[in-house]
Amino acid sequence: MTPTTSREWHILARPKGWPKEEDFALREVEIPELADGQILVRNLFLSVDPAMRGRMNDVASYTPPFALNQPMQGGAVGRVVASRSDAFAVGDDVQHWLGWREYSVVEGRGAGAVKVDPDLAPLSAYLGVLGMPGLTAWAGLLDIASFREGDAVFVSGAAGAVGSQVGQIARLKGASRVIGSAGSADKVTLLVDEYGFDEAFDYKDGPVAEQLALAAPEGIDVYFDNVGGEHLEAAIGALRTHGRVAMCGAIAQYNATEPTPAPRNLALSIGKRLRLQGFIVTDSFGRRDEFLTEVGGWLRNGELKYRETVVEGIENNLSALLGMLRGENIGKMVVALPE
Amino acid sequence: MTPTTSREWHILARPKGWPKEEDFALREVEIPELADGQILVRNLFLSVDPAMRGRMNDVASYTPPFALNQPMQGGAVGRVVASRSDAFAVGDDVQHWLGWREYSVVEGRGAGAVKVDPDLAPLSAYLGVLGMPGLTAWAGLLDIASFREGDAVFVSGAAGAVGSQVGQIARLKGASRVIGSAGSADKVTLLVDEYGFDEAFDYKDGPVAEQLALAAPEGIDVYFDNVGGEHLEAAIGALRTHGRVAMCGAIAQYNATEPTPAPRNLALSIGKRLRLQGFIVTDSFGRRDEFLTEVGGWLRNGELKYRETVVEGIENNLSALLGMLRGENIGKMVVALPE
Repeated sequence: MTPTTSREWHILARPKGWPKEEDFALREVEIPELADGQILVRNLFLSVDPAMRGRMNDVASYTPPFALNQPMQGGAVGRVVASRSDAFAVGDDVQHWLGWREYSVVEGRGAGAVKVDPDLAPLSAYLGVLGMPGLTAWAGLLDIASFREGDAVFVSGAAGAVGSQVGQIARLKGASRVIGSAGSADKVTLLVDEYGFDEAFDYKDGPVAEQLALAAPEGIDVYFDNVGGEHLEAAIGALRTHGRVAMCGAIAQYNATEPTPAPRNLALSIGKRLRLQGFIVTDSFGRRDEFLTEVGGWLRNGELKYRETVVEGIENNLSALLGMLRGENIGKMVVALPE
Repeated sequence: MTPTTSREWHILARPKGWPKEEDFALREVEIPELADGQILVRNLFLSVDPAMRGRMNDVASYTPPFALNQPMQGGAVGRVVASRSDAFAVGDDVQHWLGWREYSVVEGRGAGAVKVDPDLAPLSAYLGVLGMPGLTAWAGLLDIASFREGDAVFVSGAAGAVGSQVGQIARLKGASRVIGSAGSADKVTLLVDEYGFDEAFDYKDGPVAEQLALAAPEGIDVYFDNVGGEHLEAAIGALRTHGRVAMCGAIAQYNATEPTPAPRNLALSIGKRLRLQGFIVTDSFGRRDEFLTEVGGWLRNGELKYRETVVEGIENNLSALLGMLRGENIGKMVVALPE
C-alpha cells in the first residue's frame, strides 16, 4: 500500500553560530502524486554531513542554501516503493540527494538517483565508504593531492568518514608514512590499531604544529585538510618542497561567527612550491565507477575498514547532525529509519 | 690589462625589519687567480630583486641565506674579460648569478653563466624582460596559473618588472580582461596607457577588495600574486569557480617582524575549487629557450613594452634595493656600472 504521508525536517530560521533546536521543525506532510518519470523512495538511511551546516546560511556556495520552511536535503539510501520511471522498478535500492525525510519523490532521469548494489556492502555504506565521503577521500587524495607512492600523508579529522578512508587508501597505495589527527584518545587509538595509521595524535593535547613535528620529523608531502585553521597552518609548515594540500573542509570554522585565523605562513608556499587546491566531490562523479571498483575490491577482501555511528529515528536527525559537528561520531554518522 | 681589485657588497648583520645601511659594507678585495674552467666577468648591469630581502634572513629557503661578511649575490650581466673555460671567450656577453660586485669569477661549466644575445635587446634587458623577471612572468602565468584564452587576469605589483609583463602577456594571449594594482597614480596611468591593461587602481586609494570589485565586477579567473596580504584575500573573494592563483611573491610582508594577516577567506577555495600554487623561477629554467623565442618576438615587433629604472654606480646598489622594496622603481630596477 502506497503511503500517503511522510515526516520531513524543515529549517525555519538561519542559525547564527551554533544551530539551535527551535530553528528547525519535523513536520508531517502529504506525499504528492508522482509525475511522469518520478519515483517514490522509502528512505532507509539518511546522511548527516559537515557541509549541511554551510547550507543553513544564506550564502551562495557550490550548493544553494536550504530554503526556509522547506525540507532540508542530503544524501539518502532507500528502496523504490512506486515508480513512474522506466529506469527504476519497485524494489530497487537507490542512492539520492533528497534526504531529511521518510519518503522522497525523486526524478528518475538524470543524476537524481543512482542504483546501488546491496550485495557489495550493506546499504548504509553507500552514504559512507562507498558514497560521497568515500569518493571524496579517494578522488581528493589521488586526483586533487596527486598522491604518489612513497608520499608521507597527513590527514586531519582522521577518525571521520572521509579522513579514515584517506589514511587507509594512502596506506594501501604505498605511502611512506600516514599521520592522522583526531579529537580524543579513543579516536587516536582507533586510527593506529584499526585503520593502520603509522602515527596519530589528539589535537587537543597541544599545539598541532608541535605534535605534527613529532609525528613527522622529516615533514610531509600531502595534507588532506578536513578542518582548516590551526591544522592548515601547521601542515604548511611541515610540507616539503612540491607538497600538495587537498582542501576538503573547514569544520573548525563552520559555526564561527567571525573570520577564523588563517595560515599566517601561507607565503611559505612560494619557496616550497606548494599547491593548495580546493575541491568538492560533485566534480568527481565521473570517476564513480572506477572508485566503486577499487574501493569495493578492498572492502570485499577486508583490506579497508570502516565504522559507522548509527542513530535511529528521523526525530533524531537534527541531534545527529549537531553531534557530528561536535565530533561525537566515529566514522560515518547515519540515521537509520528501519522498516 | 686584467684588473686586480674589485669592489663588492658584504652583509655584516642580519636586519630585523627594514634593512639599515650599517648592516652592509662596500669592500675592495683582490680578484683571485682564475682556476681551470672559470671566467672573469666585468659586470655592466646588476640586478636588485625582492627575493634578496629574504636572503638577508637566517632562514632556510629555496636559496640559502647570504653568508655574513661574504659578498652578496644576485643576477648580473657583463662581458668576459678573461677565460679559462672552453665555453666562453673574452668579449662574450653573459648573464650570471654572482652580482653585487664589479668583477665576478664565475664557473664556466654548468648553469653558472649563460650567453646572451646583444642584438635581440640591450644587455640590461637580460635582467628584466628577457631575464628572471620575464621568465617568472611568462612561466608563472602560463604554467603555474594555467592561463587560458578568455581568462580575466588580475596582477598585483603590476608596474613592477614581473607584473607589467604578466599583464601584457595575458593581453597578447587573449585575456578577456587584464586588471592591475600598483602603488601610485603615475603607475596606474602607465598600466593603462603604456601596457594596455583594461583596468588599474592604486591600492592605497581604498580597500583592495572594493577596488577590485569595481574593476572586475564579474570576477577573475587568474590572480598573479606579487604582494600577498590584503591583495590575496581580495583576489580569493573575486576568483570565480576553478580560479587559479600563482603565488610569486609577498613583498608586503618581506620586512614584517610579525606574521602578517593571512587571507581569512581561504576556505572559500573549497567551494570555488581554487588552486593556489607557489613557484620559483629556477624550476622553469628548462623553458628558457621557448620563453626567449616568444618574448623576444614580441619585443622585436614592438608588441611588448618595458621600462627600467636605472641607478648608476655600485656604491648605490644597496639604496637601489631599498628603493625598489619601497616601490620607488617603475619597471625593472637595475644598477649600471658603465665602462
